[in-house]
Amino acid sequence: MSAPLNAPRAAVVLAEANLDGLLAASFENVYYVSGLSTETFAMMPHQTELYAVVSGDRLDEPRVVCSVGEAANVFEEGGEAMRAYLFGSFHRAVAASVDLTATESYVKERVLDGTPHEGIVAATVAAIEDAGLGGGAIAYDERSTFPHTLAAVTERLPNARFVPGYALFRRIRAVKTADELAHLRAALALNEAAVLGAMKVARVGISEQDMIDEFRRIVVTGGGLSTFTQIYFGRRGATGDVQDHSARLEPGDVIRFDVGCAVNGYQSDIARNFCLEEPDERTRRLYAALVHGEEVAAGALRPGARAKDAFEAGIAAVREAGIPDYRRTHVGHGIGLELYDLPTLSQNDETEIEAGMVFEVETPYYELGFAGLQPEDTVLVTETGSEFLNGISRDLEVWAT
Amino acid sequence: MSAPLNAPRAAVVLAEANLDGLLAASFENVYYVSGLSTETFAMMPHQTELYAVVSGDRLDEPRVVCSVGEAANVFEEGGEAMRAYLFGSFHRAVAASVDLTATESYVKERVLDGTPHEGIVAATVAAIEDAGLGGGAIAYDERSTFPHTLAAVTERLPNARFVPGYALFRRIRAVKTADELAHLRAALALNEAAVLGAMKVARVGISEQDMIDEFRRIVVTGGGLSTFTQIYFGRRGATGDVQDHSARLEPGDVIRFDVGCAVNGYQSDIARNFCLEEPDERTRRLYAALVHGEEVAAGALRPGARAKDAFEAGIAAVREAGIPDYRRTHVGHGIGLELYDLPTLSQNDETEIEAGMVFEVETPYYELGFAGLQPEDTVLVTETGSEFLNGISRDLEVWAT
Repeated sequence: MSAPLNAPRAAVVLAEANLDGLLAASFENVYYVSGLSTETFAMMPHQTELYAVVSGDRLDEPRVVCSVGEAANVFEEGGEAMRAYLFGSFHRAVAASVDLTATESYVKERVLDGTPHEGIVAATVAAIEDAGLGGGAIAYDERSTFPHTLAAVTERLPNARFVPGYALFRRIRAVKTADELAHLRAALALNEAAVLGAMKVARVGISEQDMIDEFRRIVVTGGGLSTFTQIYFGRRGATGDVQDHSARLEPGDVIRFDVGCAVNGYQSDIARNFCLEEPDERTRRLYAALVHGEEVAAGALRPGARAKDAFEAGIAAVREAGIPDYRRTHVGHGIGLELYDLPTLSQNDETEIEAGMVFEVETPYYELGFAGLQPEDTVLVTETGSEFLNGISRDLEVWAT
Repeated sequence: MSAPLNAPRAAVVLAEANLDGLLAASFENVYYVSGLSTETFAMMPHQTELYAVVSGDRLDEPRVVCSVGEAANVFEEGGEAMRAYLFGSFHRAVAASVDLTATESYVKERVLDGTPHEGIVAATVAAIEDAGLGGGAIAYDERSTFPHTLAAVTERLPNARFVPGYALFRRIRAVKTADELAHLRAALALNEAAVLGAMKVARVGISEQDMIDEFRRIVVTGGGLSTFTQIYFGRRGATGDVQDHSARLEPGDVIRFDVGCAVNGYQSDIARNFCLEEPDERTRRLYAALVHGEEVAAGALRPGARAKDAFEAGIAAVREAGIPDYRRTHVGHGIGLELYDLPTLSQNDETEIEAGMVFEVETPYYELGFAGLQPEDTVLVTETGSEFLNGISRDLEVWAT
C-alpha cells in the first residue's frame, strides 16, 4: 500500500502547528494517510468508523483502525506491514484440506484465530499509544470522528490533547504529489471525454436529463464515478442547481456544463458552454471577457503569489474586458480528494501559492433571464508559473451536429 | 415538496423520548424531514452545512437552513411555502427587459434583493426559534452537525437542550410510508435487472471488474446510483471485500453478487449466486440450507415479533437444514435512505417488528478456501406477516450462457 500522503509537507504543517500526529476519520483523509480505501466506508459514512493514526515522526508508518470485516482488504492493500487494529467479530468457516491463499491465511490468523480488539475505542486507543501519541497533541478530523468515540478515547488518554484538524488536513493536502497529479489528470481526461460525449447527443428537443444520463454512462464506462452533473439549457443555467432536468433544448440555447467525476478517488470539476448555432454578439463578447479573466487568474498562480492575487487579477481582467460590474466571491479552488481543496481564490485568502497545487480556475457569469456562461479549467502550479491541464478548447464552441 | 417523513411515527417517537423537535444534518435526514435534496450536499458532506428543523407539534412545517446557492432548488422543490433560512452571498446579474420566471424571481427576491442571514449559525438559530424550539429539547444529528456550529448555536440558545439524535432519526425511519415503499421497490427492481444484466456477460475468462462495470452501466442507464458492487468468483467470495477485481472466472466457480443501488435516494441491497455449470452436491446442500434459513427468518418477521426472534429462527433453521455449526452476527437489517436502517436482525435486538418495516434478510455462509454463498432478499412486513419483494429466483441458478 502506498498512501497518497505528501509526507514532507505534512511534517512542515504539523511542526508549524506544534502538533505531534494525525487522527484521520473521513473516507478521504483515511485514504490519504494510510492508502486504505473501503467500499463500505464510502457508502455508509455515518455508520462506519474507520480511523487512521500517524505520528509526525513516522509519517510512513500509518496505523488503521477498522472492523475485522476489512481484514482481507487491509492485507491486499498493505500486506503484513500494514499496522491494522481490527475490532469486532465476523464468522467465517475454513475449508478442510485446502491450502489457503495468503489473503485467506491472513483473515484466518487475524480474525478467526486471533483476538481482535473488542471495539472501536480500545482499538483506537491502542493505535494512538503504539504510534507514540499517548501523550501527544493530535489533530483529529472533527467533522467525521464519531462524537461518542472521541469522548471515550479522550477519557482513556488523559495525557493526549485532541485538536480539531479538518482544516489542517486540507492544508497538508493542498500540495499534490506526482501520483496525485496523475490521478487528477486521469479524472480530468475522463471528464472531458464525457462532456464531449454528452455533446454528441445534443440536438434541439433533447432533455437535460438525457444529456446527464449520457455523461454518466461515459464516466462509468471509463471506470470513474460521476459526482455532479449540472447541465442546463439557456436561461436555466443562471439560477443555480435544481433537481428537475426535464427541460428540453431550444434553438439558440447556450448549453452550460458544470460537471464532475472522480477517478481513483481524485476529483475533476470543469465547466464548458456550447451552442448549436452561432450565438449573438453580446454572448460572444461576454464569454471572451470571462475566458480572458480566467486566463489572467490562472497566469497569476505562481509560487510566492497569494491566492487573493489571482482573485483580484481575474476579477479586474473580466471587468476591463467587457463586464464592468462583474462580481464573484471566488474565481477558483483547489481540487484533489475533495472537490474543494484549499486554497480558495478569493478576496481574503492570503495562502501562498506553491508548486504542486492544482486548481479549478473559473470565472462564471450568471444572468437571470439570460444564461449561465462559465469557463472552468484545471490549472497546475509549476516551479515557475502555471499551466492549463485541459485538452479541449476553452472557447464558446458552436457544435457541429 | 413532499417530505418522506412518517409524521405519525415521528410524533410517537418524539413523545416517548420527551423531545420537542428534530435538527437534521445528514443528507438523508435533511431529505427525510424536509424533502430537500441537493447535489452539492451529497457530493461534499464535509463542506456543506444544510440543516432541517421541525417541531414535533408541526411535523408538516419543516424549515431548511441552507446556502443562498440553493435558492432555486428550494423554490422548485417547495415553492413559496418552504420555510427557507438562506445564508451567505452569491452574485448573479439580472437581464434587462426580460420577464423573469417564478424561479428566477424567487432567486432575485430572496438572494439578490433580500437580506440572507449572515451565516449558518444565525440562520440555524432563527429556524429553531421560529419553529418554537428556542426553549425545547431537540434531537440533533450528532454524526453530521459541524461541531463548531453546534457549539455556537447552543451558546446562542441557552434555553434549548440538544440531545444526540442519530439513533432517534433511525427509529423514526424504520417504518416506511407508501411513497418510500414505492422507491424501495423501484431500487430493488433496478438492482435485480442489473444483476441479471451482469450475468449476461458472464463467461469463463471474464474478470470480476468487467461484470462490475456492466452492473454499473445498467444501474446508471436505469437512472440509479450504483452504491456497492461486491462481485466475486469462487473462493474469493469468502474472504471479504477487496479492491482488486482483476480475477477471472474459472470453470466451476460460484459467482457471488452482493450488490446495491439507489433510486430517488432509496437503497437496495441483495445477494445472489450463480454457476455456469452444475455445482457439486455439497454446494447444493449448503445453499438449500441457507435459503431455508432465510425463508424461516423472513417468515418470523410479523408485527409483534422481536427482531431477535427472526435471528434465532433463521440461525436454527440453517443449522437444522444442514450446516450444524452455522454462525452469524445478524441475518438481516432494515433498509431505506441508508443501506442499514433499523432494526438489525441480531441476537440482542429487542425491537418490536411493525408493519411497514422493510428488511434485507440474508443468511450468508463464507468458507475460506471454498466460496461465499449468500442469498439476500428484500422483505416487507405486512399487517399479518411478511412478503418477499424480489422478482428473481432465490435458487442457486445454473446460468445458461
